[in-house]
Amino acid sequence: MISKKELQEKIISCASELRSENPMSPSVTNAVTINFVANAQLAVGGSAAMCYLSDELITLGSLTDSIYVNLGTMLPLHADSIPETVKYYYGHGKKWTLDPVGIGSGKVRGSILQKVKAYPPSIVRGNASEILALCHLWGILDEEGDGRTRGVDATEPVDSAKDAAVRLARFTRGAVSVSGEKDLITDGQAVIYSYGGSKFMPMVTGMGCSLGGVAAAYACTGDPLTAAVCAANVYNLAGKRAEAESRGPGSFYVHFIDQLYLASPKDIAENPFDLVSADEGKADGKE
Amino acid sequence: MISKKELQEKIISCASELRSENPMSPSVTNAVTINFVANAQLAVGGSAAMCYLSDELITLGSLTDSIYVNLGTMLPLHADSIPETVKYYYGHGKKWTLDPVGIGSGKVRGSILQKVKAYPPSIVRGNASEILALCHLWGILDEEGDGRTRGVDATEPVDSAKDAAVRLARFTRGAVSVSGEKDLITDGQAVIYSYGGSKFMPMVTGMGCSLGGVAAAYACTGDPLTAAVCAANVYNLAGKRAEAESRGPGSFYVHFIDQLYLASPKDIAENPFDLVSADEGKADGKE
Amino acid sequence: MISKKELQEKIISCASELRSENPMSPSVTNAVTINFVANAQLAVGGSAAMCYLSDELITLGSLTDSIYVNLGTMLPLHADSIPETVKYYYGHGKKWTLDPVGIGSGKVRGSILQKVKAYPPSIVRGNASEILALCHLWGILDEEGDGRTRGVDATEPVDSAKDAAVRLARFTRGAVSVSGEKDLITDGQAVIYSYGGSKFMPMVTGMGCSLGGVAAAYACTGDPLTAAVCAANVYNLAGKRAEAESRGPGSFYVHFIDQLYLASPKDIAENPFDLVSADEGKADGKE
Repeated sequence: MISKKELQEKIISCASELRSENPMSPSVTNAVTINFVANAQLAVGGSAAMCYLSDELITLGSLTDSIYVNLGTMLPLHADSIPETVKYYYGHGKKWTLDPVGIGSGKVRGSILQKVKAYPPSIVRGNASEILALCHLWGILDEEGDGRTRGVDATEPVDSAKDAAVRLARFTRGAVSVSGEKDLITDGQAVIYSYGGSKFMPMVTGMGCSLGGVAAAYACTGDPLTAAVCAANVYNLAGKRAEAESRGPGSFYVHFIDQLYLASPKDIAENPFDLVSADEGKADGKE
Repeated sequence: MISKKELQEKIISCASELRSENPMSPSVTNAVTINFVANAQLAVGGSAAMCYLSDELITLGSLTDSIYVNLGTMLPLHADSIPETVKYYYGHGKKWTLDPVGIGSGKVRGSILQKVKAYPPSIVRGNASEILALCHLWGILDEEGDGRTRGVDATEPVDSAKDAAVRLARFTRGAVSVSGEKDLITDGQAVIYSYGGSKFMPMVTGMGCSLGGVAAAYACTGDPLTAAVCAANVYNLAGKRAEAESRGPGSFYVHFIDQLYLASPKDIAENPFDLVSADEGKADGKE
Repeated sequence: MISKKELQEKIISCASELRSENPMSPSVTNAVTINFVANAQLAVGGSAAMCYLSDELITLGSLTDSIYVNLGTMLPLHADSIPETVKYYYGHGKKWTLDPVGIGSGKVRGSILQKVKAYPPSIVRGNASEILALCHLWGILDEEGDGRTRGVDATEPVDSAKDAAVRLARFTRGAVSVSGEKDLITDGQAVIYSYGGSKFMPMVTGMGCSLGGVAAAYACTGDPLTAAVCAANVYNLAGKRAEAESRGPGSFYVHFIDQLYLASPKDIAENPFDLVSADEGKADGKE
């Protein structure tokens, strides 16, 4: 298992290289927050390209190692274009980040999620209930320890999905990021809790979507765990800093984008986070 | 007919409950302003979920009592998905809010408007010319008093649609909200004029769309008339306050979202508005 | 060839009339920046209407002399709707502005670009590599002087596309605008270099798209060259002013929209720019 110090060094390297190289990570993402996703990726140093059609997304594959797939605002064409795209990226050893937003709703989304299981994502980003739902859909949890019985309405939502996230990460051999009051990120071995953020975050649409997009950007220059922690840390840091100068969700959004841009790699690495073993505390319920 | 005092009490209750309960009101809305609609709904206390597909919108029906339908940026799939969705919501006793933006343009939009007449909307939100056009399309106005002869270019546009709005509200048995320099809202009995707003509003795309979305959010916790007045009042209040601290449409948008968030239920109820009888002033031309 | 003074007078007239008349210029544009395009058009005095479907775009043709076509986020329906729309506008003597963003990627985009060559755009807006790619696709450059050999990664990108832009403008009999650190605009006779802008511009998605949209707005009240220079000048001016009061791309966007609104026609005409002959410097490599 990685140590906290090693992870911080990787974060600095990952965030620095994204700023210096500006690699592109294309996205197929929802209409509501597509602008926010692009601007967040640009603010942290990446380049953005948004598409609907698989032939375009595959063309861009020669220019990138990482793509972002978000399942909001589905259109019928996504039923084929997303699995085709993901198959290409996975088959060419590239990373892809999945945000299963809206899981459980609609035939198109359900069909996509069934198909892409064969090409497991490098990073999954969702809230506790979405991560649990994905694990159930993919049959990853057994009856007994499936986490669902503890409920997605637990006072500490991300911990309600801790076991599921660990199992999901072991299945995908990538990283899983569970968003909540604190964020939980795991690669199946280490569990990281990232702290910070803002009360305004739930009042701005696309905070979760753009966090996934930023994780996909960092995946151009870091491994899945590093990229996911890097994204969670910069969001928690920028959220905390932005709230201090905001009086509502309108000004918060503006300051948040500025703070994504202003955060140095060292700032990102030093945002408060804990690292524990995935197996730790299993018996005594301690995090 | 409701009194001004009763309406103010209902506004306080409606706005308070939206803030405390955060109910979701899904939307099918246009690509231009979909982000603004969601953020405006969140700023006043609601929850947002945007979809294209009727199976998703119908799934969300079990979680909500109110949906927002905006006819901007039509795609061919809307021709079926919107009527199917509206039929479901109407048939299940739920409220729906219609923004007939672009009425008169295009086969898809025309077909939708003809189909949904059978499931009258709880709230219609439009400018004077859109409300007049909808009344003509639905055959609600007779030759004589159709309001069109007075023109949509009257110096006082909302009053040019007053008769049409009253008739439309009597047809839908809901509320009609006519946006203009002042806003006119009617349930067919009372006519409310809400005052405030800003010169910057016409320079920011989506002010009308998001006003409709916010009315749909308030319809989760209030009757159609209360919801429509609540939305008009908070927009007029936030617009006036935001203008005082803005120098252009860019800063105005930011302050406007902040002010939507900062407006208390009491503030919203006390925003200047008049309430008269729908039949008052018909003979003497007084508003 | 027009003189600098004549062009400045035309810019003042074009920008003033847009503010006083608020003519509409419809757009078919991408989902990422559709909101920014509309708000930029409104900020400089235009009116906006965004559509996907050709029957709607053609209906709007009776209300406007200028349309904006941007090839980002292609959907299958664009394959027909864009050529049909462009054919109508061109055939009715109206102007259209093309942003060939993403050129080279995807069957839909390629098919559209082949079809619309028969209806040459009044204004083309792109970066150096996009302008070069469009010239190659349309067979406008001969082997020898095609500009591509000098590379799109030249330290002075816009000049790498100077010859291509001049030839393209002679082919379309309109204006070509090449965006870069400085902007190059030509009608095939005069070459204008417009200066200003900001380091934050590449960090905000949609700066190029909305520049094209604003050029289309100015094309309602000016000839293609005037409209394209007007747009480049107001962008360079607003960008420079906005940067002076911004600390990141979030605040920059807000100030930029405000500065678009605040720029007077005289300010726009007096933004630093050079005007030279298209044939000048061809031999000696001087700009």
